[in-house]
Amino acid sequence: MPVYLDHAATTPMLPAARAAYVDALGVVGNPSSIHSQGQQAKRMLEEAREAIAASLGAEPVEVILTSGGTESINLGVKGLFWKRAPRRVVLVPGGEHHATVDAVEWLASHEGAEVVTMPVDELGRLHPSVLAAALERHGDDVALVSLLWGNNEVGTINDVAALVAVARASGVPVHVDAVAAYGYLPIDFAAVGAAALSVSAHKIGGPVGMGALVLARAWEVEPLIHGGSQQRVRSGTQDVAGAVAFAAAAASTRPFPEPSFVAELAGVRDRLVAGIRDAVPEAVLRGDPAPDGRLPGNAHFTFPGCDGDSLLFLLDLAGFSVSTGSACQAGVPEISHVLLAMGVPSDEARGALRFTLGHGTTAAEVDALAAALPAAYASARRAGHATRTPAPTAFG
Amino acid sequence: MPVYLDHAATTPMLPAARAAYVDALGVVGNPSSIHSQGQQAKRMLEEAREAIAASLGAEPVEVILTSGGTESINLGVKGLFWKRAPRRVVLVPGGEHHATVDAVEWLASHEGAEVVTMPVDELGRLHPSVLAAALERHGDDVALVSLLWGNNEVGTINDVAALVAVARASGVPVHVDAVAAYGYLPIDFAAVGAAALSVSAHKIGGPVGMGALVLARAWEVEPLIHGGSQQRVRSGTQDVAGAVAFAAAAASTRPFPEPSFVAELAGVRDRLVAGIRDAVPEAVLRGDPAPDGRLPGNAHFTFPGCDGDSLLFLLDLAGFSVSTGSACQAGVPEISHVLLAMGVPSDEARGALRFTLGHGTTAAEVDALAAALPAAYASARRAGHATRTPAPTAFG
Repeated sequence: MPVYLDHAATTPMLPAARAAYVDALGVVGNPSSIHSQGQQAKRMLEEAREAIAASLGAEPVEVILTSGGTESINLGVKGLFWKRAPRRVVLVPGGEHHATVDAVEWLASHEGAEVVTMPVDELGRLHPSVLAAALERHGDDVALVSLLWGNNEVGTINDVAALVAVARASGVPVHVDAVAAYGYLPIDFAAVGAAALSVSAHKIGGPVGMGALVLARAWEVEPLIHGGSQQRVRSGTQDVAGAVAFAAAAASTRPFPEPSFVAELAGVRDRLVAGIRDAVPEAVLRGDPAPDGRLPGNAHFTFPGCDGDSLLFLLDLAGFSVSTGSACQAGVPEISHVLLAMGVPSDEARGALRFTLGHGTTAAEVDALAAALPAAYASARRAGHATRTPAPTAFG
Repeated sequence: MPVYLDHAATTPMLPAARAAYVDALGVVGNPSSIHSQGQQAKRMLEEAREAIAASLGAEPVEVILTSGGTESINLGVKGLFWKRAPRRVVLVPGGEHHATVDAVEWLASHEGAEVVTMPVDELGRLHPSVLAAALERHGDDVALVSLLWGNNEVGTINDVAALVAVARASGVPVHVDAVAAYGYLPIDFAAVGAAALSVSAHKIGGPVGMGALVLARAWEVEPLIHGGSQQRVRSGTQDVAGAVAFAAAAASTRPFPEPSFVAELAGVRDRLVAGIRDAVPEAVLRGDPAPDGRLPGNAHFTFPGCDGDSLLFLLDLAGFSVSTGSACQAGVPEISHVLLAMGVPSDEARGALRFTLGHGTTAAEVDALAAALPAAYASARRAGHATRTPAPTAFG
């Protein structure tokens, strides 16, 4: 088996989540059915919702189960935008995930939004003063703010509590994309005070195809998917087994995440960062260099004079699974919009490689990666900046 | 275990689908990742897509995987509407599923659509001549037609090929809601000529939380969920295990469904219809009485002088799981909009009960239901038309 250092793309299911899933697959009945079998399914669903809510510092009634992080973000961003009409301005920092970037671009091209991109600093952070200035400039016309808790590519953590406080002072709702942060940082929805917050189950060891939008009682969203209103603003038959498995991952430790897990993971990550710097002194760590300024499983570097893709392929051949950035855009050889937003020159940004650690990652694995890196880097440099053409497939 | 006669709400997972699911849950890697593990996941996904496409008479590239029937219908209906702007008229027959009804109502209230409801006959059928007249009346202003293949409540089958032919003659795209028909009728997307067609996995013995919109190459939809564009018009990490399990159900027989399964199911259903008529002569079969005019697993009756809910609870106590209609609206004691669209007086419509059979349903089970019915009906009649108040829960 290859060494898997792409946990941010998807992390393997936790054994407890998988066992809960398999067990719940045998349940018969739609939780919207009012007969006993349906009501039994519903009880399982609502217990799962409680566990998921507890892991997020939210109330069960605030947890809307979705098909994943992308749907959650779309519901949070578009749903707030529509409810806040006629306000038109959407404030987003540079370097957001494509789910946010593409959703707000669609709102601009299709629904009359004015999208204002706020600058981030060279580490990828949005400063509260920048947000305050943007809110000041656009006044009552601001529909919402959407921002990342932890950046999925470079791992930089925003001071979400401070940012939300600034927006709340203007009465503006904030949607927080916590997909990359969830499972790696403690999330206390009530304490942060955001209007909405998006998470995904498969990033924490739950199943793919499950996520949640946490929506504060004080705010409303316009639905994205209409129908039987199984969950007020989200229609569709509810996935009991998926929710139970999601809950098993979310309740796998209390608190979630376990501080010792986070500390150990950060330790292995720091060992990887040091190992890479030893192995390839030219490599440049991107994102916040302070260990607690970045997600504990994230190490992100640019390697001068080569393509990240080439390095990825060479490491793949050597038995390591890594990423050039967001998996969601992988397969398309484009330069990271996150690095560009941070002011990294495009020539340097091409050499980006993201290593993301998760449950089960060992010191021996990251040592092996560091040992394999110099030869891969030398080969990638010889290949230089050749442009690859991705293989045509039904769906990229 | 109760006798489960609510297969239209959700049908138990087929053993082959469950086994495939459990097996695929162990796969590590996001199919959008370009390393070997990601590409292995992607191969599994694309093989699954091929099997799903084959079960629908479609090409793999036409199959967009979604979180279920409701999302598929929303994507098909809203997506076509947006792409067809500035055309504004949406033609739908009365008695559509709430996913369609609520989606088009939102298009009307929010996006400027004009929704024209076309009358259905007393059996729930839309006649091609009615569609032709509506198309004639609204001319070039028609954005799309959306209609059910088989009605989820009363089981009536529309002549979809004839209806699509009428719309095609006017150049108007048709979205077909085949959620209730899939797995019970042969579906040949290419032969029917629809622009788009929605199905759900958990209605055929696959997992909850998976569905597909089949979209013909000649048509485009505006996305509902934006992001990494993992599937052109549908973003979000693709659920490999879910797709593999969906495919296992869809490929469980070839052709799908197996004609002998359909014939046997219809035979048991006809036995149930005869048994109910013997047990409660006052009961009125709703929908098409011709055995091949209705879905083979569907029997739908109204019982005079009682509430369907009361009858449902009494049968539940006696060990039978049945429905008053669409599970998606169950829990809310409202009169079926399907029956009202068919011209059933509301007083009669209140006594509706739907029995839906599926894999594993036996003659002994339906005989037991018929035997239990007279006592339940007598009790329900004594209760009369009392109005129940549903228990308050987080989500209805």
